Amino acid sequence: MYSLNDMVALRREIHSFPEPGWCEFVTTSKIVERLKAMGVEPLVGKQIINPEFIAGRNPAAVQAALAAAQAKGVSQELLDKMEGYTGTVAVFKTGRPGPVIAVRFDIDCVEVSEAQEPQHRPFAEGWSSQNPGRMHSCGHDGHLTMGVGLCSWIAENLDKLCGTIKVLFQPAEEGVRGARPIAESGVLDDVDFLFGNHLGLGVDTGIISAVPGEFLATTKLDATFTGVAAHAGANPEKGKNALLAAATAALAIHALPRPIGPVSALNVGTLRAGEGRNVLAPNAFMQLEVRGESEEVNALMREEAIRRLQGAADMYGCELKIDKAGEATEFNPDPEAIAIAEEAAVKTVGAENVQHLDLKLGSEDATILLRRVQSHGGKGTFIVFGSTLKAGHHQRLFDFDEEVLSIAVNFYKNLLTKTNGI
Amino acid sequence: MYSLNDMVALRREIHSFPEPGWCEFVTTSKIVERLKAMGVEPLVGKQIINPEFIAGRNPAAVQAALAAAQAKGVSQELLDKMEGYTGTVAVFKTGRPGPVIAVRFDIDCVEVSEAQEPQHRPFAEGWSSQNPGRMHSCGHDGHLTMGVGLCSWIAENLDKLCGTIKVLFQPAEEGVRGARPIAESGVLDDVDFLFGNHLGLGVDTGIISAVPGEFLATTKLDATFTGVAAHAGANPEKGKNALLAAATAALAIHALPRPIGPVSALNVGTLRAGEGRNVLAPNAFMQLEVRGESEEVNALMREEAIRRLQGAADMYGCELKIDKAGEATEFNPDPEAIAIAEEAAVKTVGAENVQHLDLKLGSEDATILLRRVQSHGGKGTFIVFGSTLKAGHHQRLFDFDEEVLSIAVNFYKNLLTKTNGI
Amino acid sequence: MYSLNDMVALRREIHSFPEPGWCEFVTTSKIVERLKAMGVEPLVGKQIINPEFIAGRNPAAVQAALAAAQAKGVSQELLDKMEGYTGTVAVFKTGRPGPVIAVRFDIDCVEVSEAQEPQHRPFAEGWSSQNPGRMHSCGHDGHLTMGVGLCSWIAENLDKLCGTIKVLFQPAEEGVRGARPIAESGVLDDVDFLFGNHLGLGVDTGIISAVPGEFLATTKLDATFTGVAAHAGANPEKGKNALLAAATAALAIHALPRPIGPVSALNVGTLRAGEGRNVLAPNAFMQLEVRGESEEVNALMREEAIRRLQGAADMYGCELKIDKAGEATEFNPDPEAIAIAEEAAVKTVGAENVQHLDLKLGSEDATILLRRVQSHGGKGTFIVFGSTLKAGHHQRLFDFDEEVLSIAVNFYKNLLTKTNGI
Amino acid sequence: MYSLNDMVALRREIHSFPEPGWCEFVTTSKIVERLKAMGVEPLVGKQIINPEFIAGRNPAAVQAALAAAQAKGVSQELLDKMEGYTGTVAVFKTGRPGPVIAVRFDIDCVEVSEAQEPQHRPFAEGWSSQNPGRMHSCGHDGHLTMGVGLCSWIAENLDKLCGTIKVLFQPAEEGVRGARPIAESGVLDDVDFLFGNHLGLGVDTGIISAVPGEFLATTKLDATFTGVAAHAGANPEKGKNALLAAATAALAIHALPRPIGPVSALNVGTLRAGEGRNVLAPNAFMQLEVRGESEEVNALMREEAIRRLQGAADMYGCELKIDKAGEATEFNPDPEAIAIAEEAAVKTVGAENVQHLDLKLGSEDATILLRRVQSHGGKGTFIVFGSTLKAGHHQRLFDFDEEVLSIAVNFYKNLLTKTNGI
Repeated sequence: MYSLNDMVALRREIHSFPEPGWCEFVTTSKIVERLKAMGVEPLVGKQIINPEFIAGRNPAAVQAALAAAQAKGVSQELLDKMEGYTGTVAVFKTGRPGPVIAVRFDIDCVEVSEAQEPQHRPFAEGWSSQNPGRMHSCGHDGHLTMGVGLCSWIAENLDKLCGTIKVLFQPAEEGVRGARPIAESGVLDDVDFLFGNHLGLGVDTGIISAVPGEFLATTKLDATFTGVAAHAGANPEKGKNALLAAATAALAIHALPRPIGPVSALNVGTLRAGEGRNVLAPNAFMQLEVRGESEEVNALMREEAIRRLQGAADMYGCELKIDKAGEATEFNPDPEAIAIAEEAAVKTVGAENVQHLDLKLGSEDATILLRRVQSHGGKGTFIVFGSTLKAGHHQRLFDFDEEVLSIAVNFYKNLLTKTNGI
Repeated sequence: MYSLNDMVALRREIHSFPEPGWCEFVTTSKIVERLKAMGVEPLVGKQIINPEFIAGRNPAAVQAALAAAQAKGVSQELLDKMEGYTGTVAVFKTGRPGPVIAVRFDIDCVEVSEAQEPQHRPFAEGWSSQNPGRMHSCGHDGHLTMGVGLCSWIAENLDKLCGTIKVLFQPAEEGVRGARPIAESGVLDDVDFLFGNHLGLGVDTGIISAVPGEFLATTKLDATFTGVAAHAGANPEKGKNALLAAATAALAIHALPRPIGPVSALNVGTLRAGEGRNVLAPNAFMQLEVRGESEEVNALMREEAIRRLQGAADMYGCELKIDKAGEATEFNPDPEAIAIAEEAAVKTVGAENVQHLDLKLGSEDATILLRRVQSHGGKGTFIVFGSTLKAGHHQRLFDFDEEVLSIAVNFYKNLLTKTNGI
Repeated sequence: MYSLNDMVALRREIHSFPEPGWCEFVTTSKIVERLKAMGVEPLVGKQIINPEFIAGRNPAAVQAALAAAQAKGVSQELLDKMEGYTGTVAVFKTGRPGPVIAVRFDIDCVEVSEAQEPQHRPFAEGWSSQNPGRMHSCGHDGHLTMGVGLCSWIAENLDKLCGTIKVLFQPAEEGVRGARPIAESGVLDDVDFLFGNHLGLGVDTGIISAVPGEFLATTKLDATFTGVAAHAGANPEKGKNALLAAATAALAIHALPRPIGPVSALNVGTLRAGEGRNVLAPNAFMQLEVRGESEEVNALMREEAIRRLQGAADMYGCELKIDKAGEATEFNPDPEAIAIAEEAAVKTVGAENVQHLDLKLGSEDATILLRRVQSHGGKGTFIVFGSTLKAGHHQRLFDFDEEVLSIAVNFYKNLLTKTNGI
Repeated sequence: MYSLNDMVALRREIHSFPEPGWCEFVTTSKIVERLKAMGVEPLVGKQIINPEFIAGRNPAAVQAALAAAQAKGVSQELLDKMEGYTGTVAVFKTGRPGPVIAVRFDIDCVEVSEAQEPQHRPFAEGWSSQNPGRMHSCGHDGHLTMGVGLCSWIAENLDKLCGTIKVLFQPAEEGVRGARPIAESGVLDDVDFLFGNHLGLGVDTGIISAVPGEFLATTKLDATFTGVAAHAGANPEKGKNALLAAATAALAIHALPRPIGPVSALNVGTLRAGEGRNVLAPNAFMQLEVRGESEEVNALMREEAIRRLQGAADMYGCELKIDKAGEATEFNPDPEAIAIAEEAAVKTVGAENVQHLDLKLGSEDATILLRRVQSHGGKGTFIVFGSTLKAGHHQRLFDFDEEVLSIAVNFYKNLLTKTNGI
């Protein structure tokens, strides 16, 4: 079983080579190698990903990441098996009757430039990001390390366990993109209990919570308007102005009515339109999102936003293409799952360190996985592992207290001993 | 034949009871009475109006005008014959072969409050408007008087004429509403030469022009957006906001691309939306217009405006109703008609007073009548009779030099002597 | 002391002559007459209204209402004393030391056309509104009747009471206009406990609540844009388009960012712009409102809305005038006042009928009065008196169970017996 | 004196290394070298450029171009003299009294990717652009070659000439950026006659015109909105949304009223806003232009556009920076200059090939130079040298008939023989 030292080493190795969502080829290969060393042959590619439901995956970025992985020496055999899709699932079948427990860890980085300053430990100690503009500043390097550490314990103790244990290493959690195609692959369709988790979140090391707070349902959309170019000083009446169509849509989306009471949010975050100063803009590209306290509120906002995008395109005679770029749903944890987790947590850190929190957690696509599990009667919740931070998530000075790695593995050891112990 | 004094008396009687477009029941009855006194039984009602093509006619205003006409003693028999439609056409058939000549005079007033000041002759002399908010400040009182004066000459000289002469008293020229249903009635379908006319226009008394300048093609539209009301503080998400739909459309229409070179214009002139401060506006009503140097440019603007209205309604989930409220087309006078008119003009005011002008004349629905006449091979043009003004058209201090009444009748006398003289 | 029958008769008399905010001259005179008959000389005019803080008062409507009141025979002496301002305060000074208790009843109607159908009792029985387009469909006829009934009991029992009792009949609660100028008059500045109240609200007869739920802080604004007219077909570049300025502002206000979590709301409810189809609109008038769960949120929305109004006016070269048309603040009831009220409520309807509610109550300007009272250390809350309704508030079929009149008077009798009983 | 072959060789050398506006370091050095070989020491740097009036110059692009020029072996001594500014002026002083004649040739390329197809002669023959995304597809390679050819004749014939001749090689004509800082340097302040020119424009080889048609006055503007970022799902109310400010401005600019009659045009061609989907956009950058038949119309449009940009920024609480990115003015050629030019043209191509054209020429900053010359009493016009084209200007298949190079030099030889011959 991995010691804390082993895990720290792995975490730092991962930290130095961060890969963004759908591009985690090197990261996945490192996980797969470790698992194989434990005698586990994990699932990859379409075994865990239903391509039909992939969102927010940039083919050019994936190609570049594949090339980088090859250059980095990732085995072609593995890449072939992955079929272009990152992430992996370790399945531990004991052969004995018993529950199916799944734990999910996410593996992608964010687009942040890591601090290059002596005060920043990863830089000072030489294990900061080698990939400019990319950084594990959300803590997923820690998450996947917990997952590998947990697998090492399971592999060594398989004869003391019953049922099945699935450890899921999910790609593309940032932008809430990766969960849906995993859910739709069916890989979780026999799961009785699912646990997702996150370290940090403003909670100090040593605290564990299985009642963390609220997640918002969300939909991310990309809208592409295609008009017709025309020379503004010669024959503007021959053009179809995509810039104005998009401007009109942006205003209307921000103006859409919000229910009184339930939380909702929306944003048109980026807009890129036009090709030249003196040409009626023939194109516009817009990234937007809606959120809602419940899936119902989120759907209301989404449908209304789409209506306004389409109407604005029609106004200006433009074509509109809308792509879903990510999604998460509301969070409805199950009391039974909470009870099991809290029992494990108390064993791990003592009752006084097990808390009910009311965090506003933004959006998390673990909710999509949980909804899938719940759809066939499974249960689940989401665990927060406290870890004192150097700077907030997504900050360039982000760093966490690596002690959390042991705490998390111990928690799951206690949980599995309870649920799947013989 | 009417003397100038007779015409001045009629003009002032008409001036004192101005009626707006489609409401000229008293005005029409005065014309009809005069014509009957000359032994002419003029056409009215559906004989000259095709109701299918009526635009910009407010049923409530028409009802009120009808009631006022009855109160004023207009004969019920005449009103019955009119079938709710104003205007009349005197047809003089000589029974002898010869050309069909038509002359058009318009009869409606504008919505202006006439000056109540000693310096304003109509007020000082006691013949200013009795109808508050309405005034013959465009000069149509003069136009119809010319027409009646002309009829009196024709009636007395019918045995010296050949062919057919039609004198058309058109309702609802303001807002370019009346011409289309008259054209579509077919009453001009045998006309060889059509002449429309206007007095004043910045040209002094004594000048006549048969080459007056440019008219713009135009379409007037009324747009009605119907949404769904909702309490803004309780459940705004249940509403469909017609105010925002109309605001969006207004901006987009003003933003529509204009051809470089040919003249065009557009305006959203009025907007009325909403019912209460705290209710999502369930309705909006908008009056707009487009114009173009040619019918092609006008149509381009109109189609684009309609596209934007519809798209804006769709964006906000509103229903949209678009009504045509008026129309005029471009002006293409015929050289042959100009030649005839200029010969008559020279006889009337001398060659030195016959001018080619380059007035920007806005829009005139005589163009619709001329297009109809030209469609079967007829010819025509538009005559400007100079008349020194006290103030510009549509001004509250507007008044014209009544000398123009004689000049116009003499002009047509000369013209008819040439074209329809035996 | 008024019997239920007496109160029912008064309520129906008031119901038949509804007057909107700032126009309640007949209504006020009826209250004043009744109070005088009890030997009370109530305060009126600037004694209770600080004109500097009046909002949403239409001078023309007030003039018309004054004329109607004179026609209706309201004494000129009273009208003179009122100085053009409606509402009245009955002050009962016992001369004995003791607390100052104030109770507030509102007296204005809403702009709704009352149902003229047999199923509607006021119509069937002949006491429905004589004033077209106006109706007591919020229940303020009931409120003021409670107030008069309460005064009759106080007047008869003054020798059994100590301290001072103020019964406030407030004008213009609809649109939250009347409270601020009353607060600023200082008439409540010695009050120890203030109670406001409302009947109905979906709560059945017999229920009383002193913990009713939430009110939203709100600001009502009127925005007037003044541009420059220009002929759209001649020289549009000389105009300043107030219609487009207002359209731009409306969109931007609806698009303003809302805090995540705290309730907020906003609406541009009406827009009237322009004078004619072919004229660049020289004017626009807009009624809007913002609301917030707290005064802080409301202020945030208000300041941002004003910024957007001003920027939009500047964009189009228009002048902007903003008038405050009403305001209310958040609701922070005092436990001490709740305790007193609940004790009285239990005495009145029994403990099982005294409820804590969580109604979403929109906005109420009683909050402005309460804030004033609290600013000098006074306390208060807001009472809901259940009354089974025939149709919702502000509906044309609205009617309430008049039994509530007795219940309310009994409640206040019990309350005053406790607080001001000797 | 350069033969046509010499000029063709130079033109193709220039064609293969196109440089965009303000980056023409290699191009300028090639011209300077050729001039020095003729014994001429041309003016460069601040001698001909007033930096205060530079517009549309991207410092990063200039740095890259400088580095490329150094790599290409351009002498550091020349680069030092240029002081970072491209273009040059050859001044031929005869020492004899006589007029000052200036001729202007422009030298920059456009951002077009040159065709790589056998049918495209430059590619087939191996002299197409070596600089990806850049191409001499407007014909300025031809223009500057004419200028060098002309200089070679002047240098050889200086003893047969009187007065002064200035041959101006202007940078950054595309985007109408280069003329203003040259005008403001004063280098043309003694010029009696100025001639600009363009080849092609749809006119066939052998035709010359000194009355080419109309240029539009224009102003190019860059608008930068700076707001405040905020997380859209956490605290959007803390942000200032630059994307919405820019969207609002874009709509309002397209909606600005256009004079009826005189030609005008406007366009918001590009918009780049925002940093991430879930962040309120803290920035927006917009490129726009206005045009007008006269400087008056252009100024009207520009002032109104700026008003709307500023108002929109204010609405959303954003900062606004506006940079002028280019300008040209209206074209008022002088009859005296036209007469001189037409005499030279007749001598060059015969009277039957000298035409008056009515081209719509867009905008040209030679107009800025001409205005400067006219401001001290000088005269000028703009010459079109016909040259049959393979594809339109700014097209990837653009190529011209090199015969025009001789025709242009001969024209100016004839012109100078007339004006500055001894």
